[in-house]
Amino acid sequence: MNEKDIMQLLEQLKNNNISVDEAYRAIKDLPFKDLGFAKIDNHREIRVGYPEVIYCENKTISQVREIIKFMLTKNNNILATRASKEMFEEVKGLHRDLRYNELGRTITYEANKIPRTESYIAIVSAGTSDLAVVEEAKETALILGNKVEVITDVGVAGIHRLYARLDIIREAKVIIVIAGMEGALASVVGGLIDKPIIAVPTSVGYGANFNGLSALLSMLNSCASGVSVVNIDNGFGAAYNASMINKI
Amino acid sequence: MNEKDIMQLLEQLKNNNISVDEAYRAIKDLPFKDLGFAKIDNHREIRVGYPEVIYCENKTISQVREIIKFMLTKNNNILATRASKEMFEEVKGLHRDLRYNELGRTITYEANKIPRTESYIAIVSAGTSDLAVVEEAKETALILGNKVEVITDVGVAGIHRLYARLDIIREAKVIIVIAGMEGALASVVGGLIDKPIIAVPTSVGYGANFNGLSALLSMLNSCASGVSVVNIDNGFGAAYNASMINKI
Amino acid sequence: MNEKDIMQLLEQLKNNNISVDEAYRAIKDLPFKDLGFAKIDNHREIRVGYPEVIYCENKTISQVREIIKFMLTKNNNILATRASKEMFEEVKGLHRDLRYNELGRTITYEANKIPRTESYIAIVSAGTSDLAVVEEAKETALILGNKVEVITDVGVAGIHRLYARLDIIREAKVIIVIAGMEGALASVVGGLIDKPIIAVPTSVGYGANFNGLSALLSMLNSCASGVSVVNIDNGFGAAYNASMINKI
Amino acid sequence: MNEKDIMQLLEQLKNNNISVDEAYRAIKDLPFKDLGFAKIDNHREIRVGYPEVIYCENKTISQVREIIKFMLTKNNNILATRASKEMFEEVKGLHRDLRYNELGRTITYEANKIPRTESYIAIVSAGTSDLAVVEEAKETALILGNKVEVITDVGVAGIHRLYARLDIIREAKVIIVIAGMEGALASVVGGLIDKPIIAVPTSVGYGANFNGLSALLSMLNSCASGVSVVNIDNGFGAAYNASMINKI
Amino acid sequence: MNEKDIMQLLEQLKNNNISVDEAYRAIKDLPFKDLGFAKIDNHREIRVGYPEVIYCENKTISQVREIIKFMLTKNNNILATRASKEMFEEVKGLHRDLRYNELGRTITYEANKIPRTESYIAIVSAGTSDLAVVEEAKETALILGNKVEVITDVGVAGIHRLYARLDIIREAKVIIVIAGMEGALASVVGGLIDKPIIAVPTSVGYGANFNGLSALLSMLNSCASGVSVVNIDNGFGAAYNASMINKI
Amino acid sequence: MNEKDIMQLLEQLKNNNISVDEAYRAIKDLPFKDLGFAKIDNHREIRVGYPEVIYCENKTISQVREIIKFMLTKNNNILATRASKEMFEEVKGLHRDLRYNELGRTITYEANKIPRTESYIAIVSAGTSDLAVVEEAKETALILGNKVEVITDVGVAGIHRLYARLDIIREAKVIIVIAGMEGALASVVGGLIDKPIIAVPTSVGYGANFNGLSALLSMLNSCASGVSVVNIDNGFGAAYNASMINKI
Amino acid sequence: MNEKDIMQLLEQLKNNNISVDEAYRAIKDLPFKDLGFAKIDNHREIRVGYPEVIYCENKTISQVREIIKFMLTKNNNILATRASKEMFEEVKGLHRDLRYNELGRTITYEANKIPRTESYIAIVSAGTSDLAVVEEAKETALILGNKVEVITDVGVAGIHRLYARLDIIREAKVIIVIAGMEGALASVVGGLIDKPIIAVPTSVGYGANFNGLSALLSMLNSCASGVSVVNIDNGFGAAYNASMINKI
Amino acid sequence: MNEKDIMQLLEQLKNNNISVDEAYRAIKDLPFKDLGFAKIDNHREIRVGYPEVIYCENKTISQVREIIKFMLTKNNNILATRASKEMFEEVKGLHRDLRYNELGRTITYEANKIPRTESYIAIVSAGTSDLAVVEEAKETALILGNKVEVITDVGVAGIHRLYARLDIIREAKVIIVIAGMEGALASVVGGLIDKPIIAVPTSVGYGANFNGLSALLSMLNSCASGVSVVNIDNGFGAAYNASMINKI
Repeated sequence: MNEKDIMQLLEQLKNNNISVDEAYRAIKDLPFKDLGFAKIDNHREIRVGYPEVIYCENKTISQVREIIKFMLTKNNNILATRASKEMFEEVKGLHRDLRYNELGRTITYEANKIPRTESYIAIVSAGTSDLAVVEEAKETALILGNKVEVITDVGVAGIHRLYARLDIIREAKVIIVIAGMEGALASVVGGLIDKPIIAVPTSVGYGANFNGLSALLSMLNSCASGVSVVNIDNGFGAAYNASMINKI
Repeated sequence: MNEKDIMQLLEQLKNNNISVDEAYRAIKDLPFKDLGFAKIDNHREIRVGYPEVIYCENKTISQVREIIKFMLTKNNNILATRASKEMFEEVKGLHRDLRYNELGRTITYEANKIPRTESYIAIVSAGTSDLAVVEEAKETALILGNKVEVITDVGVAGIHRLYARLDIIREAKVIIVIAGMEGALASVVGGLIDKPIIAVPTSVGYGANFNGLSALLSMLNSCASGVSVVNIDNGFGAAYNASMINKI
Repeated sequence: MNEKDIMQLLEQLKNNNISVDEAYRAIKDLPFKDLGFAKIDNHREIRVGYPEVIYCENKTISQVREIIKFMLTKNNNILATRASKEMFEEVKGLHRDLRYNELGRTITYEANKIPRTESYIAIVSAGTSDLAVVEEAKETALILGNKVEVITDVGVAGIHRLYARLDIIREAKVIIVIAGMEGALASVVGGLIDKPIIAVPTSVGYGANFNGLSALLSMLNSCASGVSVVNIDNGFGAAYNASMINKI
Repeated sequence: MNEKDIMQLLEQLKNNNISVDEAYRAIKDLPFKDLGFAKIDNHREIRVGYPEVIYCENKTISQVREIIKFMLTKNNNILATRASKEMFEEVKGLHRDLRYNELGRTITYEANKIPRTESYIAIVSAGTSDLAVVEEAKETALILGNKVEVITDVGVAGIHRLYARLDIIREAKVIIVIAGMEGALASVVGGLIDKPIIAVPTSVGYGANFNGLSALLSMLNSCASGVSVVNIDNGFGAAYNASMINKI
Repeated sequence: MNEKDIMQLLEQLKNNNISVDEAYRAIKDLPFKDLGFAKIDNHREIRVGYPEVIYCENKTISQVREIIKFMLTKNNNILATRASKEMFEEVKGLHRDLRYNELGRTITYEANKIPRTESYIAIVSAGTSDLAVVEEAKETALILGNKVEVITDVGVAGIHRLYARLDIIREAKVIIVIAGMEGALASVVGGLIDKPIIAVPTSVGYGANFNGLSALLSMLNSCASGVSVVNIDNGFGAAYNASMINKI
Repeated sequence: MNEKDIMQLLEQLKNNNISVDEAYRAIKDLPFKDLGFAKIDNHREIRVGYPEVIYCENKTISQVREIIKFMLTKNNNILATRASKEMFEEVKGLHRDLRYNELGRTITYEANKIPRTESYIAIVSAGTSDLAVVEEAKETALILGNKVEVITDVGVAGIHRLYARLDIIREAKVIIVIAGMEGALASVVGGLIDKPIIAVPTSVGYGANFNGLSALLSMLNSCASGVSVVNIDNGFGAAYNASMINKI
Repeated sequence: MNEKDIMQLLEQLKNNNISVDEAYRAIKDLPFKDLGFAKIDNHREIRVGYPEVIYCENKTISQVREIIKFMLTKNNNILATRASKEMFEEVKGLHRDLRYNELGRTITYEANKIPRTESYIAIVSAGTSDLAVVEEAKETALILGNKVEVITDVGVAGIHRLYARLDIIREAKVIIVIAGMEGALASVVGGLIDKPIIAVPTSVGYGANFNGLSALLSMLNSCASGVSVVNIDNGFGAAYNASMINKI
Repeated sequence: MNEKDIMQLLEQLKNNNISVDEAYRAIKDLPFKDLGFAKIDNHREIRVGYPEVIYCENKTISQVREIIKFMLTKNNNILATRASKEMFEEVKGLHRDLRYNELGRTITYEANKIPRTESYIAIVSAGTSDLAVVEEAKETALILGNKVEVITDVGVAGIHRLYARLDIIREAKVIIVIAGMEGALASVVGGLIDKPIIAVPTSVGYGANFNGLSALLSMLNSCASGVSVVNIDNGFGAAYNASMINKI
C-alpha cells in the first residue's frame, strides 16, 4: 500500500464511497503487521519509499515462508536476500511468479510491472569470483525499478579491460564497484570518472584478506574522493543506495 | 582552466585570434604541472569536475606554500584540508582572500563567486565533540558550490532533539551524518528518512572506541538500508560525495 | 539444598531428631560433588543464591547426562544452556519434566513451583534473527523466578515499532536489549528510558560485523549512560544479571 | 528543573498565581537549550531522572565554560567528566562552589543538598594505578545521591587483602569492580558475592594489555554470571548504572 | 639412540669390537632421517634431551603412518599430538603397544619402561570444557617421565573448590594452569603459590572470547609475577616446559 | 599468442601472404576474450610475459571448465590454482595432458615443451605441514620454465637440518622460504645467504597463529634485510615473483 | 619480615622474652599495611617468597615516595620498576643506598647483602635496541639473589654471533630470550638448547610490528618446544619467573 | 674488509710479506667487533655482500656515535637509517664526508667511490606525503651502488600522471612502489609491467588506515602477480631487496 493507495482510500471515505469501518480495516495494519516473531513494516513504503526487504540469514525457513505469504496478500513487490536454495524450494509454491537467482541467492516477486528509470546504474566488478555479489546488487536494483548495466571481470590486473568499457561506465548516473582482494578497482574508477561511486568490498581472496577486511580498508582509504563504502559482500545495500541516487 | 576555457581557446586558435605558440603555452601544463615534489593535476577539473584538493597532513609547510602559490596563478578555487594553524600563518600572505577555519582546519580561497545549488546538503552530527569534522565537511560543501544546512548535537541519547529538526533534514537532497562513540545516529536517521545518507564515523569516545573503529563498524553494519560510509573523520570525503549527488 | 534446608537440618541435629552420622551424610557433598571430570558446586545456591548452571558447549553428551542425573537427585532446579538437540534426546529419559527450548537451546527442569516476581524484566530485541538469544534469556529469567515481557523485532530501522511498545518497556524494573548488526537499539532505548539496561550484542549480520564485534563495540561505546554489556550472544548472562536487579 | 518544579509551576498557573506568559518563559527551554554549538538537554532530568553530564574530552575550554555557565542559571547539579586542570582554572570563577577532583578529572557543583541513599555502592579496585577511574566513579555516584564505600588495592595477586574486606563488599546493594591488566578481580568477586557487579576495565598495564583490551575481553568472558561491563576507563558510566540499581 | 648408546658404540669401535663400517651404518642416520617429505630429527634426543614429537595437524594419515613406522624401528618413545581417531585406526596395527587418548587426541608408545620423577607437575584446570587440553598435557608429561597430579574444575567462579585442593598444588615443583573464558585462574593460583606457573589459554567460551584471545591476553597481563604463557590450547608445550623444570 | 606470433602475422600481412580479413580474425580476440562471466586476458602474455592464471576459488566448476576449454583452443600453457579434486574430475576429459597435483591443488597443461632455465629457484620449507604451499609454488615455477630445487622440513627447531642443505640453497638465484607457526626460517635463511628471498607465511599452527597472521607479521618484521613477503599460503605468487627474478 | 623473623619472634614470646603487646605490635602489619591509597603486601614475602615489587607506571611520584618510605622502615629489599628519572630524583634522598638504573628504569635497594646462587640465569638479547628490557630483567634477577650472565646483540640476522656464545648459554639453568621485530631468536635458541626458555617480546621495530604484537605472536607460536612467553617488554616478569626456576 | 682484502692479506702471509702476528691483528675482529652494547658484524660484508646497516631507532645518540666511529676506522661505507637530526648533529664532526638526508632521515658515508650499475631501480610513489620513505629507499639504493630513477606523485586518483611516466618505469630492472592510503598503485603498476615489484606500504592516511595496515593488506592481497611486500614505511628494506635483484 503506497501513498497513492492511501490518498484514494481517504478520498473515498470523504466522498462516502466507503464506510469508516471499511477504511479502518484497510489501514489498520498500516504501521506494521505483527506475525508474532516479526513485525512486518507496512508503513515503510510510505515512510522511506520502498517495501521492507527480507534478510533471510538467521531466519528459519518457516519464518521466511510466513513473511512472504503475508506480503503476497498485500500485493507488494518482494525482495528476499541471502535465501538458500532450500528456502526457495519451500516457498515457491506460494506464487508462480516467485523467482530465484541461485548465484545471487535472492527471491523476487514483481507484483506489478515496475517502471524502469531512463538513467542507469553501472555495476562494475573486478573478478569472476565477485559475481555472487554482483547478482545480489543487480536483482535489488531491478526490483527497485532501475535500469542497470553490468560490467564484470575488469579488475586492475588487466586494466585495459576496464578502459574498453569506460564509456558505458561514464554515462551511468551512479556506479557500484564490487571487488575483493585489494579492492583497488574502486580507486581507479574513482580517479577516472566524476560520478558517485558506491564500493562493495567482497570476501574473496587469499589468507591476509581476512574475509574482506583488506578490500574494506582499501576502499575506505581510497585516494579517490568520490567513493563511499557499504559492508562486505553487501550487494543489496549498495544497490539500494544507488537506486536512491539514480532516482533523484 | 575548465572545459569552457579550453573550448574558447581552441576557437580562438581556429579563428586565428591567437597563434599556435600562444595556444601551446596556455595548454602545456594541462595534464599536470610538475613542481618537482608534486604534480598538480590541472586536468582534474575537466576530468572529474572539481579542482584538486590539497591534503596537508604529512606535507611540509613549504610544500603546501608552493602548491597554493602555483594554484593561485591558475585562478582556481582552492581547498586545503588538515591544515595546521602554522601552515596558514605561513601561507596567508600569498593572497588576502585566503581564509582559515580553525576548528575544521581548512584553508579556502574563492577565486570567483561560486554559484550555490537550490537543493541543499544536510549535515547532521551527534555531539559537540564531532564539530571539527562538521566544519571540514561544511567548508568542502561550500567551496564546491552547495547550499548547506547544519544540524548539530542531535545524538540518540536525547532523541527528541533530533525529532525537533527532522523536517529540515527530510527536505535535503542528501544527508551527511557525523557521529562518534557508537555511531547509532546514522541508523536512526536512515530508518526515518528516504534519502541517500553518507555516514562519517569520528574518532571521538572512550577506550573501546579504538580511534573510531566502533563507529566505523557500527555504520557499516547499519540495519538501515540507505547508508554508505566514508573513512573515519573524513568530513571532506563525505562532502565531496554529497556534492556529486546534490548536483545531479 | 538451600539456606532453609540447612538450618532445618542443624536444628534437627541440635534437638536430637537426627544423628550426627545422618547430618554428616546430608551435608558432606555441600561444598561440591566430585564427579571425576567435574565438581558440582552444591554450595553455590547458598553462596550466590542460584544453583549452578550447566554450560553444555565443549562438554560431551555423557558428561552433561551425568551432571543432570546428579542434580536431579538433589531436587534442584536445572538450567542447561547451549544444549544441542542430540544432548536433549540422550537426556530426556532421566525425568519427564525436563523441557527443551529448541530455538534457545536450553534444557530446563522445575523441581518445585517457582514463585514469580511482581516486577518484570523486559527483553527487547532488534530483529527476527536475534530470537535464539532472546529465548535463552527468557528461559533463564523464568527458571530464576522472574516475570518476563518479551518485545521483539523493534530495531531502529523502523523506530515507530519501538515507540508503539515503549509503555510496556518503561514499566519494567530492568531491561535486556538484544541486537546484532550495529546494535543501535541499546543506545536508543537507553536515551528514552531511565532504567538499568543490560545489552547483549549478537553475532548476526553481514561481513564487517565480525561475529558480533560490531554490535559489541557499539554497545560498549553507547552514548546513553545506563547501558552495561555482556558477552556476544550471552542471553543467559544478561538474564542472570537482570534477575539479580529485578529481585532487589 | 525537575518533575516537582514543573508540577508546582502548572499548579501556580492553574491557580492564577502566575500568568501564561510567565509560565511560557519558565518552560520554553524545557526540551533543550540551543547554545549554537550544543543543545543542553533540559528535558533530560524529567525523562531519565538525572541532569545531563558534560563530557569534556574533545570540547574546547570555552565550550565547557559556556555550558557550565548556562547550567548554573538553571540551578542544576553539575557533573563534568574528563575535565583538564586548565578547564577548571578557566571555569572556577563562575561559582565558588565548583569543585575539582584532580585525580578523577571531574568538576562538580552541588546546587542543593543532595539526600544520600541508605544502601550503598561498593567501589572495589585492583591496584593503585586504577585510582583515577575509582575517583571518577566515586564523584559520579556521590553527585547522583548515593552512599559509597571505596575499597582499593585488593587485586588478586594478593587475594587475602580482598578477603579482609569481603564483609563490607557483601553488604553493598551493587558493586563496581575496577581493574586493569588481566581484570581477574571481577570474576573473583563475582564468584564470591551474589550482587549485581558492574565491571570497568582500565587501560593500565604492560604492552599486550593493548590499552585495556585485555581487561575488557577478560571481563566480558567472565565465568562468574553476575558481571556486566562498561567501556574501558568509564568510571562515570559504571557509577551511573550502579546508581540506577542502588535507587531501585 | 641417546647419549649413552653413542658413547657405547664409540667405545666398541675404539676397542675394535665393531668395524668402522658397522659404526658408520649405526650412526649415519644420526642427524636426521630423510623420509622424502619429512626429516626425522634423530639427533634431537641428544641435542635437546627428548625425541621429536609428531604434530599431526596438517599432515596426511599416510605421512603420520610413515613417521611412526620409522620411529618404531629406532625403539624411541613416541608421542603424536593432535591425532584424529582416523589416524589412530590406520596406525594402531603397527604395534600393539600404541595407545590412543581420545579426549587428548594423542598417540603414545612407551618403548622402554620410563622412570618417573619423585617431584610432580600439578595440572590445574578451570572447567570441564578444558579437559581436552588437560589430557594432552598429561600424556605429554607422562611420556617424558614425570609424576603428575591433575586437579580439574576449580575455576574462580567457585573459588572454594580451588582452596580445597591448594595443598596438593602447593607441593608441586611446577604448575600448569589451563583455563578458557577470562583465564583468571592463572592469576589467582599465581597470587597464592610461590612456584613457576605455565599458563595455557584455551579456546573455550562465548563470542568475545575470540577463539582464546581473551584468555591469552588475560594470562599475558597477569598481575601475578610467576606466570609465563604458551600458545592457545597448547597442552603439549606447557607439559614439555614443565617437564624441563621438574627435572632440574 | 605471443610477441613472435603477432610479428609473424603482421609480416605476412605486409607481404600480402594473408588478407586484411584474415589478419583481423586472428587478432580480434587479442585484448581479451569475453566469455560472458569472464574476460580471458589474451593480451597478457604480450604485456606481462606469462599467460593468465586461473584462480579457481569462488569460481563454479562449470566456469573453470569453460575457461580451460577456451584456453586449450589458443594452445596456451595453462595453470589453474586452488582447484578442487572435483574440478579436475570434471575437466580432465578436455585434454589427456591436463595434470592434477592433489597436494598443491593445481591443474597444469604444457602446450609446448617449456625450456628450463640454467639457474634455479630454491624452495625451502619449515615443516611437513607446509607441503601444500610448497607444491603450489613448485608447479607454478615449473610451468613458467624454471629449474627448481625443493628443500623441505628444515625448520629452525632443528637448525642443523638447514645447515646440511645450505650449499644447495646458497647456489640458487632466488629463494622461496615457506613457513608457518612463527615463520623464523625466513630470518635465519636471510641472515645466512646473500640472495633475494621471497617469504610465504602459511596458515599452519596452534591457536594464536590466527590463520597465518603470526608468520605473516614475523616475516614482515624480519631483522634480515633481503626478505620480501607475499600473502598467506600464496605459493603461486611467490613462484611467479621468483620466476621473474630467476629469468633476469 | 620473613619466615625466620616470625619464628624467632614467636619463640621469644613463648619463652617470655617479649610481651604479648610487643609481639602484637611487631606483627600487626603482617597481612598488609594500609597507606590509604595502597595496601603494602607485607605477608607476601612469607607467602610467595619475595617482597612486593613497586610497579611505578600510573602511580604519582608522591605515591611511589610513600611506598618506598614505608618499605625502608621494614628493612626489606626494594625493587621499583618503570620508574622515571623524575621519580628517582624525588626519592633518592630517603636512603643513600637507593640505586637507579637509567636504561632499565629500576630503583633498587639492597637492605642486606643478598646471597647469590651458584647456577646462573642467561639473559640473551637480539639487538642493541632491546637493552632497556635486558636491564630491567638483570636488575630484577640480581635483587632476587641470582647469578646472571648477559649476552646481547646476538640476533639471527648474524647468527654466527650467537654460535660464538652458545657455550655460556648452554651452561645456564634457565634462559631469558629478549627480542623485538620478528622475535625469531627464541625459536633458534630453543632449537639448540635443552633448557627452559622464557621469551620476552619487545616493542622494538618497524610499522607492522604493531608495538610488539609481531614478536609476541612469533614467540607464542614458536616451533621449539621449550619456550614460554611473558608480556611485551616485561623484563621483570621474565626474571621473576627465571629466578623461581633457578632456585629450584 | 671485503673478500678481495682478505685474499690479498692471506697471499701476503703465504709470501712472507707479513708476519702471522700482523695477519692475526688484521683479521681478529673479522667475525664481529664487540663494543660492549653492540657487536658490529664485520663478517657481514663477506657473508651477505653489504656492510651492516645502523638502525638508529631505539638506540641512544652515544651508541650511534660509537658505532659510526668504529666503522669509520674500518673504511666501510656507512648507512644509518631512522637517524634524527639530533643524532647527525652529534655525529657529523667525526668525518666531513658524513651526509644527512633530512626528509629520509639517513646518514651516509661513501668511503670509496661506489661504482654504479648500468641497469636501474625505479622508485615510484603515490603522493607527496610518501616522500620520506622514497628518500630512505633512494639513499639506500645509492649507497649500495645502484642507478636509481625516482617517479613521485603518480597515485591512481590521477592515473594519467602514471601513464606519462610508464616508459621509464618499464625500462627498470626492478621497481619499488611506495604508497599509503589504499596502496592501489602497486596493483596498477603490477598489472601493467612485467618486472619484479617490491611494494612498500606507508603509514600515510586518514583514520581507518590504522597506521599503514590498510595499504599493507592491500598490497599483500594484490591481484597482480608480480608484487611482494616489505614492512610499513620500510624504504630501506625495499631498496636492499631491489639492489640484490638489480645486481643479478
